[in-house]
Amino acid sequence: MSLDAVLSRIDADLPAATDRLLNLLRIKSISTDPAYKADCDAAADWLVEDLKSLGVDAAKRPTPGHPMVVGHVAGDGPHLLFYGHYDVQPVDPLNLWHRDPFDPEVQDTPKGPVIRARGASDDKGQLMTFVEACRAWKAETGTLPCRITFFFEGEEESGSPSLIPFMKENAAELTADVALICDTGLFDEQTPAITTMLRGMLGEELTIKAATRDLHSGMYGGVAMNPIRVLSKVLAGLHDETGRVTVPGFYDGVPELSNQIAAQWADLNFDHESFLGNVGLSVPAGEQDRTPLEMIWSRPTCEVNGIWGGYTGDGFKTVLPAEAHAKISFRLVGTQDPHAIRESFRDYVKSCLPEDVEVEFKGYGASPASQMSIENPVFEPSRKALSDEWPKPAAYVGCGGSIPIAGHFKTILGMDAMLIGFGKEDDQLHSPNEKYDMESFHKGIRSWARVLDALTK
Amino acid sequence: MSLDAVLSRIDADLPAATDRLLNLLRIKSISTDPAYKADCDAAADWLVEDLKSLGVDAAKRPTPGHPMVVGHVAGDGPHLLFYGHYDVQPVDPLNLWHRDPFDPEVQDTPKGPVIRARGASDDKGQLMTFVEACRAWKAETGTLPCRITFFFEGEEESGSPSLIPFMKENAAELTADVALICDTGLFDEQTPAITTMLRGMLGEELTIKAATRDLHSGMYGGVAMNPIRVLSKVLAGLHDETGRVTVPGFYDGVPELSNQIAAQWADLNFDHESFLGNVGLSVPAGEQDRTPLEMIWSRPTCEVNGIWGGYTGDGFKTVLPAEAHAKISFRLVGTQDPHAIRESFRDYVKSCLPEDVEVEFKGYGASPASQMSIENPVFEPSRKALSDEWPKPAAYVGCGGSIPIAGHFKTILGMDAMLIGFGKEDDQLHSPNEKYDMESFHKGIRSWARVLDALTK
Repeated sequence: MSLDAVLSRIDADLPAATDRLLNLLRIKSISTDPAYKADCDAAADWLVEDLKSLGVDAAKRPTPGHPMVVGHVAGDGPHLLFYGHYDVQPVDPLNLWHRDPFDPEVQDTPKGPVIRARGASDDKGQLMTFVEACRAWKAETGTLPCRITFFFEGEEESGSPSLIPFMKENAAELTADVALICDTGLFDEQTPAITTMLRGMLGEELTIKAATRDLHSGMYGGVAMNPIRVLSKVLAGLHDETGRVTVPGFYDGVPELSNQIAAQWADLNFDHESFLGNVGLSVPAGEQDRTPLEMIWSRPTCEVNGIWGGYTGDGFKTVLPAEAHAKISFRLVGTQDPHAIRESFRDYVKSCLPEDVEVEFKGYGASPASQMSIENPVFEPSRKALSDEWPKPAAYVGCGGSIPIAGHFKTILGMDAMLIGFGKEDDQLHSPNEKYDMESFHKGIRSWARVLDALTK
Repeated sequence: MSLDAVLSRIDADLPAATDRLLNLLRIKSISTDPAYKADCDAAADWLVEDLKSLGVDAAKRPTPGHPMVVGHVAGDGPHLLFYGHYDVQPVDPLNLWHRDPFDPEVQDTPKGPVIRARGASDDKGQLMTFVEACRAWKAETGTLPCRITFFFEGEEESGSPSLIPFMKENAAELTADVALICDTGLFDEQTPAITTMLRGMLGEELTIKAATRDLHSGMYGGVAMNPIRVLSKVLAGLHDETGRVTVPGFYDGVPELSNQIAAQWADLNFDHESFLGNVGLSVPAGEQDRTPLEMIWSRPTCEVNGIWGGYTGDGFKTVLPAEAHAKISFRLVGTQDPHAIRESFRDYVKSCLPEDVEVEFKGYGASPASQMSIENPVFEPSRKALSDEWPKPAAYVGCGGSIPIAGHFKTILGMDAMLIGFGKEDDQLHSPNEKYDMESFHKGIRSWARVLDALTK
């Protein structure tokens, strides 16, 4: 078979592939909100049918949460597992979207056509790059290039509560030679990337409680403790004046970059001014003595992702609320222990509480960071294959995001993972007006065809 | 005429008076939320009709906001103006109400029957105590006891934007010998009170802005400034470790209590342990060197009444929000200048902002504190009249809340105001499950009859 023929077929089939992606994007599979449970189920059904159309033996697999989709196709050569997730982030604030987030369309922009919808990039568009590469391969050759297991999750955006039990229960079925994960981005518009370093994540929600009910700030203001005041002190104390996180023991297990990696990253000439400038910022806000790439790839963080308490509607209400809330996430690196940090964080919060004030915690996930082994023989051929598709050679990079599945493949199934993705930094992941460039989609499909070819030669 | 006959009629008419109040409470006159504009209008109409039934020449008077209700009845003796407000606070969090806040009912409780509804105490129930006293007087004697002007506002809970212009435009019509205001409470269950000291109020809403859009905390966490982090620093810095407000110049114009008032307040034997204990607290949270009564009556405060930013729904969303918001109120005393404090507060906030971060402010009200002159000859007869109705003698007290109208009567119309009210500390003003004791309502009506008698003898 000829790679060129597969690539030509991909080019010819792009309009139909785009239509298929738009159909998947119309399904409102927001996993974190129970109101969209049926939509998540529908997205799983859609994927099962689509895989079946490729001759894959696919099924929806129940979990206590949203279902998994697992599919198998036999073949010679390496056994590859491909992972993606069909669930998407919530869409609020809805008023900032320029159109319905679940009414996708291809829009012309000065930088070329984009597919606009929630999930266009994260992760439905990325997931479909691999599926479409397989479809073209199958159409051209009558078969897929090797033995492939497809594994699609529906809870990635809500902490993957069912993932580890499912992997453990189905370990034999899911273990392959290597896992391919498509949930990352290009390094820049011209440079593809294989991500070898992923931050872990720890999520905490806290509720600070003072009085047993909301109070009138005229009657009680001054004499009754205000939980928002306490929460503000807690949050304000999480960083020191140099940008370091103050939670005791937080930096245990945070490695310094090797000289080799530092040199490689320096060669990337990361343009942090434009990275920040694109979102209206100019000054890196992390630890003062770190480079911007370190801040997002190799340094741990603490961020408040949500805060609420008291009256938040129009107008003014002079209430002293009974409770105040915050959602906080820590991005972890190296061998930082999420459980130890959770304990230390909770101890810190408790140490901030005055008399009469209590706190309740709710934990969301606790995933250590992971580092890929590029010694695995799939990496270098894949890097070369990507380099053939894009203007510049592919780079091994870090990633500020957390993709715990990569670590789980290693620790639960003993399998290395290779992360290749085609997202761009302006895709507005998790934000209003998310998009996926048609170039990402098209060249992403072609890239997977090249990688499959390289790994099965 | 005989006061006893009026009091007997009040007793006999209590069930009908209660029904009338329940009808008024059914009207959802939330002034701060534009969705309830028609309801505010309906409450004004209801009051006009009710006053007309007493022979009062009453009318709804338009303003750029919600209408005023003004009514006049001629008579001999002093010319009294009675003020109340027909608008109510919002009802959120609705899930904490045990029944629909606008479906009022009389409930039996271990401490006696209560009228349960939003506005039952603040201020519809209080307002109707005076109206019902007039109704009984009229029924018994065929006339009202003196010349009375009724003046009801519909924007008290939303900063009274139309009040000052309306008072200035109708100054001649609204000027009386003294204003009676029923929007305060008893000192305790047995001790009626005339409030002679009211805190002023300044409201500020701030929006802290960093990036131009919400960001993914994986991609940007660490390198992009988080506005919630900035907001937390701003709010955490508003109080020092002794509980004092740190805004520069904030304590300019804050007087020390006179020895006389301090002694009088000490005699009240304020039970702060039970005041706080009733809402689940035990430790006074204000300035460390002040008594609890000072904290709520004569010391200024700064409270955060609402805070919001980022993802606040179920589950977890790793967003770095573009904006974070807070609503803050200052209670003012003595001659503190709300406009100077607003400027100083805004300067303080701006001084906290790092690079790339901006702030927008929205002001809500700016009312100085007010102090009543008890030299006015209406005070001492009224205090004696109240003392006849209740188990213990009436006291001159302070009030932590802000009733700017009292100051406006003085500064705009040159008229002293006397604040008498019958609320109890557990009325849950501005909170879920607001109530007004039937005792407050019944003895409140009787109290006004006694005051009217005392002032017209």
